[in-house]
Amino acid sequence: MNAYLFIFMHIFADKGRKRSYIWDMKKVAVAGARGYSGLELTRILSQHPKVELAGLYASVDFDPADSWPELTIKCPGLPLSHLLESKDHLDCVFLALPHEASAEIAPKLLSKGCDVVDLSGAFRLQDGTQTEQTQAYEHWYRMKHPALNWLSQAQYGLVPFQRVKATESASLIANPGCYATAISLALIPLLKNNLIKPDFVAIDAKSGTTGAGKKAEERLLFSEVSDNCLPYKVNSHQHEPEIQMALQRWGNSQIEMSFTPHLLPTRRGIIATIYGQVPMGTMDSHLQSAYHDAFGSYPFARFGNLNEKNMERELRLNRVVGSPRAHIVWKLSGQRLTVFALIDNLLKGAASQAVENMNLLYGWDVQSGLTLKEGLL
Amino acid sequence: MNAYLFIFMHIFADKGRKRSYIWDMKKVAVAGARGYSGLELTRILSQHPKVELAGLYASVDFDPADSWPELTIKCPGLPLSHLLESKDHLDCVFLALPHEASAEIAPKLLSKGCDVVDLSGAFRLQDGTQTEQTQAYEHWYRMKHPALNWLSQAQYGLVPFQRVKATESASLIANPGCYATAISLALIPLLKNNLIKPDFVAIDAKSGTTGAGKKAEERLLFSEVSDNCLPYKVNSHQHEPEIQMALQRWGNSQIEMSFTPHLLPTRRGIIATIYGQVPMGTMDSHLQSAYHDAFGSYPFARFGNLNEKNMERELRLNRVVGSPRAHIVWKLSGQRLTVFALIDNLLKGAASQAVENMNLLYGWDVQSGLTLKEGLL
Amino acid sequence: MNAYLFIFMHIFADKGRKRSYIWDMKKVAVAGARGYSGLELTRILSQHPKVELAGLYASVDFDPADSWPELTIKCPGLPLSHLLESKDHLDCVFLALPHEASAEIAPKLLSKGCDVVDLSGAFRLQDGTQTEQTQAYEHWYRMKHPALNWLSQAQYGLVPFQRVKATESASLIANPGCYATAISLALIPLLKNNLIKPDFVAIDAKSGTTGAGKKAEERLLFSEVSDNCLPYKVNSHQHEPEIQMALQRWGNSQIEMSFTPHLLPTRRGIIATIYGQVPMGTMDSHLQSAYHDAFGSYPFARFGNLNEKNMERELRLNRVVGSPRAHIVWKLSGQRLTVFALIDNLLKGAASQAVENMNLLYGWDVQSGLTLKEGLL
Amino acid sequence: MNAYLFIFMHIFADKGRKRSYIWDMKKVAVAGARGYSGLELTRILSQHPKVELAGLYASVDFDPADSWPELTIKCPGLPLSHLLESKDHLDCVFLALPHEASAEIAPKLLSKGCDVVDLSGAFRLQDGTQTEQTQAYEHWYRMKHPALNWLSQAQYGLVPFQRVKATESASLIANPGCYATAISLALIPLLKNNLIKPDFVAIDAKSGTTGAGKKAEERLLFSEVSDNCLPYKVNSHQHEPEIQMALQRWGNSQIEMSFTPHLLPTRRGIIATIYGQVPMGTMDSHLQSAYHDAFGSYPFARFGNLNEKNMERELRLNRVVGSPRAHIVWKLSGQRLTVFALIDNLLKGAASQAVENMNLLYGWDVQSGLTLKEGLL
Repeated sequence: MNAYLFIFMHIFADKGRKRSYIWDMKKVAVAGARGYSGLELTRILSQHPKVELAGLYASVDFDPADSWPELTIKCPGLPLSHLLESKDHLDCVFLALPHEASAEIAPKLLSKGCDVVDLSGAFRLQDGTQTEQTQAYEHWYRMKHPALNWLSQAQYGLVPFQRVKATESASLIANPGCYATAISLALIPLLKNNLIKPDFVAIDAKSGTTGAGKKAEERLLFSEVSDNCLPYKVNSHQHEPEIQMALQRWGNSQIEMSFTPHLLPTRRGIIATIYGQVPMGTMDSHLQSAYHDAFGSYPFARFGNLNEKNMERELRLNRVVGSPRAHIVWKLSGQRLTVFALIDNLLKGAASQAVENMNLLYGWDVQSGLTLKEGLL
Repeated sequence: MNAYLFIFMHIFADKGRKRSYIWDMKKVAVAGARGYSGLELTRILSQHPKVELAGLYASVDFDPADSWPELTIKCPGLPLSHLLESKDHLDCVFLALPHEASAEIAPKLLSKGCDVVDLSGAFRLQDGTQTEQTQAYEHWYRMKHPALNWLSQAQYGLVPFQRVKATESASLIANPGCYATAISLALIPLLKNNLIKPDFVAIDAKSGTTGAGKKAEERLLFSEVSDNCLPYKVNSHQHEPEIQMALQRWGNSQIEMSFTPHLLPTRRGIIATIYGQVPMGTMDSHLQSAYHDAFGSYPFARFGNLNEKNMERELRLNRVVGSPRAHIVWKLSGQRLTVFALIDNLLKGAASQAVENMNLLYGWDVQSGLTLKEGLL
Repeated sequence: MNAYLFIFMHIFADKGRKRSYIWDMKKVAVAGARGYSGLELTRILSQHPKVELAGLYASVDFDPADSWPELTIKCPGLPLSHLLESKDHLDCVFLALPHEASAEIAPKLLSKGCDVVDLSGAFRLQDGTQTEQTQAYEHWYRMKHPALNWLSQAQYGLVPFQRVKATESASLIANPGCYATAISLALIPLLKNNLIKPDFVAIDAKSGTTGAGKKAEERLLFSEVSDNCLPYKVNSHQHEPEIQMALQRWGNSQIEMSFTPHLLPTRRGIIATIYGQVPMGTMDSHLQSAYHDAFGSYPFARFGNLNEKNMERELRLNRVVGSPRAHIVWKLSGQRLTVFALIDNLLKGAASQAVENMNLLYGWDVQSGLTLKEGLL
Repeated sequence: MNAYLFIFMHIFADKGRKRSYIWDMKKVAVAGARGYSGLELTRILSQHPKVELAGLYASVDFDPADSWPELTIKCPGLPLSHLLESKDHLDCVFLALPHEASAEIAPKLLSKGCDVVDLSGAFRLQDGTQTEQTQAYEHWYRMKHPALNWLSQAQYGLVPFQRVKATESASLIANPGCYATAISLALIPLLKNNLIKPDFVAIDAKSGTTGAGKKAEERLLFSEVSDNCLPYKVNSHQHEPEIQMALQRWGNSQIEMSFTPHLLPTRRGIIATIYGQVPMGTMDSHLQSAYHDAFGSYPFARFGNLNEKNMERELRLNRVVGSPRAHIVWKLSGQRLTVFALIDNLLKGAASQAVENMNLLYGWDVQSGLTLKEGLL
């Protein structure tokens, strides 16, 4: 290697953490940057080596430094209304907004040639005819969808099963929901390999309160949440159709599913306990193979049989909180199979998966900007 | 005693729990019955032997049985607007409302001949000229007080120091604030007996979240409160002038006070840790006497030196939660005096003290309707 | 009625709360009185109108007033070793001890003619031959059972399905486990009426930490429990065979059961979420009838369809904590049935059910000494 | 620059994160690596660019990967007894042990030429004659100190006030206690500049439960800690003499101090609320200058007046948890001064300050190996 070229390359590299060459950088913005997912997106993107964080938008005025004083965030916090009026070209906008707002704003950004990673449910229910889609959104989201035509172009970014690609015009990525991510990651490898009977699967999910967002609602007050473990939306949570879609796509089967989410008195983290039955003859090695085939080379999943050494630790929510990875732990007792899926609802269940999707969209390493740091004890 | 009279009396007695004679009963109502203090008032009053619970009012429609299904509450939950239009005579109304609402409503009820126990701050700052009162309410409550003339007639119901009495026309009782109750009970006996130097007293108070009410505010979300112990209103809490008034009245002295409340990640209970210095020559027996003189015959205070056997248990918030009593525990180290005052913010700090005041107003036993039950473990 | 007799009767009545005549009272003791269940037993029994609390025993010296200062408990706290040496006749002893200790002590008390209500698992696994019982205790409790012969005489006190009776010699009552109580109460009415398919039922239970007792174990530290919802003993909890026994006895069927308990970051309360499928043609009215038949006249169960008005409130753990009742709430979605069973693990799951059993044993009202008080908000 | 040298240097650099040249690296070990502070030390040291983590010791067998699966820790977890028998030369050993164990082990390591950073209190009370030291350890630590002669050589490593230096023989660093760190950092700049009256300062500190370590004690159970805020060791905490020593050394004055620590229902973080009075004429700018002089160039302190924009956020414990920095926020109300000091008890209060001390000892940048990462939301 020519020493001059070597030196030249170093001159153009950002000193220190960032190693990207300037012509490689993407300008991105976050809409909904004051919410919990938006805050995590801000933290990750401000440290991403290939990203210039060019805009932070929220429904109220705010100072990004208020939330992240140690990050060197140079862009101001702007009212959401400024997003569409901005003259600056943005390569990619992350929408961490309510689904109604996303459904309105995403098409406008896309038509300006801007890629969109949408963290709401607005573009997730992609199955069926337009009539079925209309009904699905009315039923599950109580929304008359204003932009159904975009559903066919949206890519449902469940990493690692989906690896999104740049399309000819601007790309729209529907980032999966938090419960849907945890549950689909656990079930797809099983269904794909006929290792769970689809005729009845019970899913008992528990989530920390940040999953419900930062809205000031009576039911989310400390005084209401503490000392409880409240079930809600029994068999009626809007992630159900999304899960069925994912299972059909990558597991080739839907399931008869009972699904109850519960609100835990913790701030972060989801644990979904999944109960099913395996077909006759299923052995633990089959499960091991199925998960290995699905996740063997994927950096953000850790999986294993509960009986193995040290797997019990992977059932601790506080180990997964702060981390972009998913933990999948199973136990087979005769034909009864119990699978635990744990994620940080704000990371793999929202912000870090959104960044994985951007990484894939631009052909970068899926890990780019995402550290595998340990949770705090 | 004549046996027939004996039997006759039993016939007229309410069978079971209630032993009051019918001509003795008072008709009472609660305004703000969906809030945390209002809920506790409802629970206590519905079981009070001398009370007929005749009305429950809230800013929204509600069903009292929703909150208290096992209580036999016969009155419906009504919109607050119905309270003043009611044709029924009410003997006493408890106002568990924001101070602005209390300041508007109380005079109207009083002018109808109805006694009022107000749990807000609207009638607590009774010291000084009208100009000073005006300024005090503007400064501490950001309220232009609409009914200053009532302040002179309001009785500040700090039991046992104040024993309210029926006045010629309808009576207005300003029920003390939660922090003010805990702190004043601890300090009055000391000041009255010159057992603490008034020139500098530091008060570090910690409260569960129900003290902030049921308002849906971002700062009260589980996601914001948990894992924190947030100081707020440093030296600017509206209970400060109320405390000074109480200390002056019953302790004959004000203090130079630093006061910081903190929001605990618990639902109920206040612990105020009070730091001061005693005059030379002060001994533990002096403190013991002062508290004994103040509380010896009062059923709702438990007090003692931390060095005594078993006093450490009285420092546990979960022992005082659910109880109408206050715990006062002190430790004297040389001239340094540390006093802990613990109450349930919703009971002695609100609902049960309000019922004590009603009991005194009508000449009943102060304990009437208030059980000394133990907290849960 | 003769007035003199009337007066005479009043003289013999305990003044105040207790109305029992002296010749009716039973002398009882609690062994393990410092543990959480023992503490609740102490509280209830000290206020029970037909009981004289004659002894409190624990493995270490202790002062009952330390835990319950306001109760007028006249008996001292004694070392456990004194229990068997006591010369006093005790009518009934409650054993709130580890199962190994109960298995040793219960036979000795019984042979002295003393009734025993055992809150441990030592006498619960009553099915099968002695060989099967031996194996069951080795497998589930890792205990070589020292008193198998007593299993056939022990009555498994699941109220209201079992109504224990006095036997000729002293009676031994095996008080059900906390998870077993919640789950059996929910499932027996369904199985008995063929309203749930027994071939696969998934049970996801969550319990507060007092369910694990007061043992100082690393896994129960605040630092370990908080921010987590840790699954444990997946398909291997010792309450499984107990549940199967109860379902067989009163529901006439066992089930293929997946059962995972989780440790909640709360102090008290169990919520078991039960997932099953109903046979074709099952309607909501069938479920309603089944529960009504089982619990219609039983004061300590509240049940209903989640769709009914106000049933959502019954899913709150903090409503059931402090109460001796169980809440059973179901939702039927097509053939998928989800049933929630909530109890206070220390009351219906331990102490209050033990008192129900004593009440039934002595022919008293099942509610005797048990108040239906509301939980705290 | 010569291109060949440039390339040569890169060959010797550790690829990726670690940039140290091999001849610069220090071999270090942690004793007590399973405890909470030991775990954090392990995490930091395993990622430190100038350190080879050569040994992890604990009182029981353990697998470091059990706690930190994603760290590439190559050294095994060994019984503590192996530490002194090891033939390997260790440059530095961190002792995260009970003070009795540290007092025994540290001299042995030092005599082998190994530097010691001791996180216990064993070498902190350095003031006075040997008789006074003996009494101090008996009084505050209930320990007959076995190695008093080492106290004179121990350096009390309160960074940034102390900058430890290598001594001729092996160096012994007494790492400050968690409460002592928070309180001393807040008070030294004030005392040094006569900005607080020393005649009465009240300190109300609240700590998460990890501060009490991982010992299985009844008082630290979730069931005991939750719903409480328990004061303990009122005016008798062993950090008192340590604080006075630090204030005297760097603030030139001791104080009349009332100090009450409280146990918060949180896992991590300390907030100390400090109440004092300023001398006449003290202005906010004086306070600002004092803290600026003390911390202006120190990377691990953030300080400011509560009235300034955005300072309220610095009062949130969850912002400081996970970070090696201290937050100091004050409010001056007339002559009343309230100062809040917040740290992560396991980082600036233990592990990260220990690493700061090692960095200073070896002449490295104080920040080496310590990232200024933000806490989680």
